[in-house]
Amino acid sequence: MPQNTENRVDTAKLLARMPLFDGLPQGQTALLAAHSRGMHLSRGEMLFQKGDVANGFYLVVYGQVKLAFPSFSGNEKVVDVIGPNQSFGEAVMLAQRTYPVFAQAIMDTLLIHVTRDVVFDLLENAPSFARRMLIGLAMHNHSLVHDIESFTLRSSAQRVIDYLLQLCPSDGNCEGRIDIILPTSKQITASRLNLTPETLSRILHDLAEAGLIEVQGKRISISNPQRLRVTLAATHMDESHSETSRPRAPKRTLAVAPAKTRANIRCAKTRKPITELWA
Amino acid sequence: MPQNTENRVDTAKLLARMPLFDGLPQGQTALLAAHSRGMHLSRGEMLFQKGDVANGFYLVVYGQVKLAFPSFSGNEKVVDVIGPNQSFGEAVMLAQRTYPVFAQAIMDTLLIHVTRDVVFDLLENAPSFARRMLIGLAMHNHSLVHDIESFTLRSSAQRVIDYLLQLCPSDGNCEGRIDIILPTSKQITASRLNLTPETLSRILHDLAEAGLIEVQGKRISISNPQRLRVTLAATHMDESHSETSRPRAPKRTLAVAPAKTRANIRCAKTRKPITELWA
Repeated sequence: MPQNTENRVDTAKLLARMPLFDGLPQGQTALLAAHSRGMHLSRGEMLFQKGDVANGFYLVVYGQVKLAFPSFSGNEKVVDVIGPNQSFGEAVMLAQRTYPVFAQAIMDTLLIHVTRDVVFDLLENAPSFARRMLIGLAMHNHSLVHDIESFTLRSSAQRVIDYLLQLCPSDGNCEGRIDIILPTSKQITASRLNLTPETLSRILHDLAEAGLIEVQGKRISISNPQRLRVTLAATHMDESHSETSRPRAPKRTLAVAPAKTRANIRCAKTRKPITELWA
Repeated sequence: MPQNTENRVDTAKLLARMPLFDGLPQGQTALLAAHSRGMHLSRGEMLFQKGDVANGFYLVVYGQVKLAFPSFSGNEKVVDVIGPNQSFGEAVMLAQRTYPVFAQAIMDTLLIHVTRDVVFDLLENAPSFARRMLIGLAMHNHSLVHDIESFTLRSSAQRVIDYLLQLCPSDGNCEGRIDIILPTSKQITASRLNLTPETLSRILHDLAEAGLIEVQGKRISISNPQRLRVTLAATHMDESHSETSRPRAPKRTLAVAPAKTRANIRCAKTRKPITELWA
C-alpha cells in the first residue's frame, strides 16, 4: 500500500513548481493543494492495477513510474515510463474509464495525487489550466500515434534507431558525436520498443559493428547522428515487418539485417557469434 | 483539391448539431461559424498528407474519412476511420505538430473545418467546450492505448474477436443472437486490425466453422456474444504473438488456431481448403 506522506511534504510548494499549474492564481493553487496529497512509493511498489477505478491523476516529483499491460504469458508490455514533472492518468480520469494498464514504481518515487473534483473545478474556472491540460493530452496522443506507427510499420532495427535519435538533444539533426544515457533498464527499454532484451542487444551490437554507435552499459555514443538518420531512412525503403505491409520486392542487404534473419548471426568482421554487449 | 462549399452549406446550423458544441452560448456559435467552413470531398479524395501543417481541426457531417500511415512498401496502415459527428485533428492542432497520418475520404463526405484561432478563443471563454474537448481527447487517448495493447499483446484471432465484440451494442455482454454490420470495407477493416485481408478472411472462416458467427458480406451474425467472449478469454490464456511475450508453455489446441499455423489450413469438418467467405 503506497504511503501517504501528507505531513512531511509541502504539496502546495511542489504543485506550484509543476509546469501544468504555472500561472495559476494563488487562490486556485491553494484549492488544488487542499485536494491533493503527496505519496511515496518504494522501488517495485504497485500504485494501481489494470481495471482499477481512477478518481484523480498523478504528477511525478522525483523517481520513475512504469505503465504497462500485464500479459498472461508472464511477461508485460511497457507502454510508458513517467519521470519527474510529468503526469499520468488524466485521460482515464477524464474519460471515466478504468485503468487499461498497471502502474509500478521502478525506483524510489514521490508522487502527487490530484483528485478529480478539483480538476473539474479548475477546468471551469482556470482557462490556462484547461489549455495546458489539453496540450498535454494532445502531446501524449501524438506520441501514442507514433508508437502505433512504430509497432505496425517499423522493423525492430528501425524502432531502436528511431528511439536513439529521439534521445539525441537535437533529435539527431547534427553531425558531431553525441553521448546519450538510456533512461531505464535494458528490460524496460526493450519492452517499451516491443522487443525482447536479446533482440535489443543484437541490434545494438549490429549498430556498433557498423561503426554507428558505441555502447557502454546505459551510455551510448552516437558517432554521427546524421549518419544514423540516413541509415534509418535507407531501411525505410526496404524493410517492414508488419503483417499489413509485407515487402513485395526482394530486400537489399543492409548494414543492420532484419531481426528475423539474425537468429544465428555472426559478426561481419570477426565471424564470431553475437554476444551481449549491454550487460 | 477539396471543394469549398461555403455558399451552399449553413455551417452554423451544422455546427450547432455537433455534440462537441452543445450548449454553447449563441454568440459563441456565431463566432465559431464565422471561423469555420464546410468542404466536400469525393470518394478517394485526399484531405491532407502526412507532414502537412494543421491550422484547425475537422468535424464529419456525413461520409467517412480514413486516417492512415503511408508505407514505403506501397501498403498503408489505417489508424482510424472517422464517421458522422466525430472529429479529428484536434491533437495535432493543439500540440502544434505536423500530421502523423494522411486523411482520405473513403466515400462522399461533408466536413467542417474549424480554425485554430477560434478554438483557442473558445478554450479561454467557454469552459463547457474545453471540458468536452478534453473528454473527447481523453476517449481518443484511451482507444489508442487499447490499439497498442492489441497490436503488441494480442494474436490475430484475438484482435478480430475483440473487434466483433466492440461492434455489439451491449459490448458482447448478452447471450442472444446479434447481427452487426462491419462499418468499412474488408481491406480497411483488416488494415485497422493490422492484418492482411487474407488473414482476416481466414479468421472469420474459422470462427464460422466453430459455429460462433455467420458471415454474409459485411453482415455478421454472432450466434451468442457471450460464447464469443468466453472464446476470447480462453485464447488469452494460451496465445500471444508479440515479440515481448512469446509463450513459454506449449499451446493447447484452440477452436481458433493461431494465424501462423494456418498457412495451408483446411476446414476441420469438410477438410476442404479455406476459401474466401467475405467477398
